[in-house]
Amino acid sequence: MDLVVIEEIRQLKFRYLRTLDLKQWDAFAETFVPEATADYGDGLVFDDRDAIVAFMRESLGPQMITVHFCHHPEITLEPDGAEGVADRALGRWYLEDKVIMPEHRLILEGAAFYDDEYVRTPDGWRISRTGHRRTYEATMSMDGIEGYRLRIGTAYDEPG
Amino acid sequence: MDLVVIEEIRQLKFRYLRTLDLKQWDAFAETFVPEATADYGDGLVFDDRDAIVAFMRESLGPQMITVHFCHHPEITLEPDGAEGVADRALGRWYLEDKVIMPEHRLILEGAAFYDDEYVRTPDGWRISRTGHRRTYEATMSMDGIEGYRLRIGTAYDEPG
Amino acid sequence: MDLVVIEEIRQLKFRYLRTLDLKQWDAFAETFVPEATADYGDGLVFDDRDAIVAFMRESLGPQMITVHFCHHPEITLEPDGAEGVADRALGRWYLEDKVIMPEHRLILEGAAFYDDEYVRTPDGWRISRTGHRRTYEATMSMDGIEGYRLRIGTAYDEPG
Repeated sequence: MDLVVIEEIRQLKFRYLRTLDLKQWDAFAETFVPEATADYGDGLVFDDRDAIVAFMRESLGPQMITVHFCHHPEITLEPDGAEGVADRALGRWYLEDKVIMPEHRLILEGAAFYDDEYVRTPDGWRISRTGHRRTYEATMSMDGIEGYRLRIGTAYDEPG
Repeated sequence: MDLVVIEEIRQLKFRYLRTLDLKQWDAFAETFVPEATADYGDGLVFDDRDAIVAFMRESLGPQMITVHFCHHPEITLEPDGAEGVADRALGRWYLEDKVIMPEHRLILEGAAFYDDEYVRTPDGWRISRTGHRRTYEATMSMDGIEGYRLRIGTAYDEPG
Repeated sequence: MDLVVIEEIRQLKFRYLRTLDLKQWDAFAETFVPEATADYGDGLVFDDRDAIVAFMRESLGPQMITVHFCHHPEITLEPDGAEGVADRALGRWYLEDKVIMPEHRLILEGAAFYDDEYVRTPDGWRISRTGHRRTYEATMSMDGIEGYRLRIGTAYDEPG
């Protein structure tokens, strides 16, 4: 078990999630290889990195707050162990997400299992395939929550 | 600090949580030794693996959605370090859980500290004792949440 | 990449979060060096450990429930690698928090990015600087949630 590689891949995923929620799209793009594919369910299927990043950039405008936490990494390397240095890896994660849409007065909450593939490149590990399948998704109206008050924080001030 | 063993134990716990939420009861059972015990509080005490699995299988029917995330693993090995190879370990985790019961129109949310014991077997690490103590638990009615709409995802389609 | 040090620092952070939520203030204090500083945003700036601990002790009375989960650790050591043994580290984490205030009938939920600095001491790693910047914070009234019922668990019975 190559723990350094496993840690490098966890860091890659954390960077993907951090730049996604902070809408730092150039840094988000750098977590993928150009030919990366994605399938986020509900027909949200993308055939390369440009398509993935364009979709996120267009869907997640400055008025939306997204929270994506990934838990329980189960990462396997290929090859693993004595056969040689891994140049490909698979990762399963348990996603917890929340999307707050003040313009639509909606909140979405859900959970899903992510299945990723990663590849080693001269610049480090990158995502070559990603996607998830939900266990559930719940939407609700902000207007129904008594006294609901939303404040945007300063984390977005960070240079993108 | 034997980091490989710590990672193996984290993987075991993630498998326990994943098979629990996906209701894959045979794979869930395989995370325990036969003589494993559990104490989930409120008198939910079980004396062996069969009793734990039977309880989960009966309580968590297909109409219920459960979400169990375990954070902050604090795992200690016994013996640890130069004294020899660990064959027993203790684990503390911080649980975040949510249970959605559409038939009863109820949602439960809570947090708890898990205290586990693990043992090394010829087939790898297994749970020999588990249980948690809650910090809090809140229940609420789905009917009181304006516009509440629940969708079940495709993750359960995975073969159990 | 010194994985043992990274794991030691994760353990330190988990102890900080566990003792914070369990209100074990003496053990909480031990996660800091005496000269540690903190900036939790909104002017909550503290110049030493005593000030941090006093603020938490006074703000978080027995009637409040706090839940602080830290996800996605991105820890970098200084120096890292062949240059020598690390004696300083930086850590970024993604905080998910919830505060339940039964006396005020309020619930607060939010997320933030933590930026920490850690130093090696003769007694192990300690926090020398901490703080976070929020992505969002939402407050709501408990009274608006139909059928809301809160139960306090037994985790607080643990000796502090």
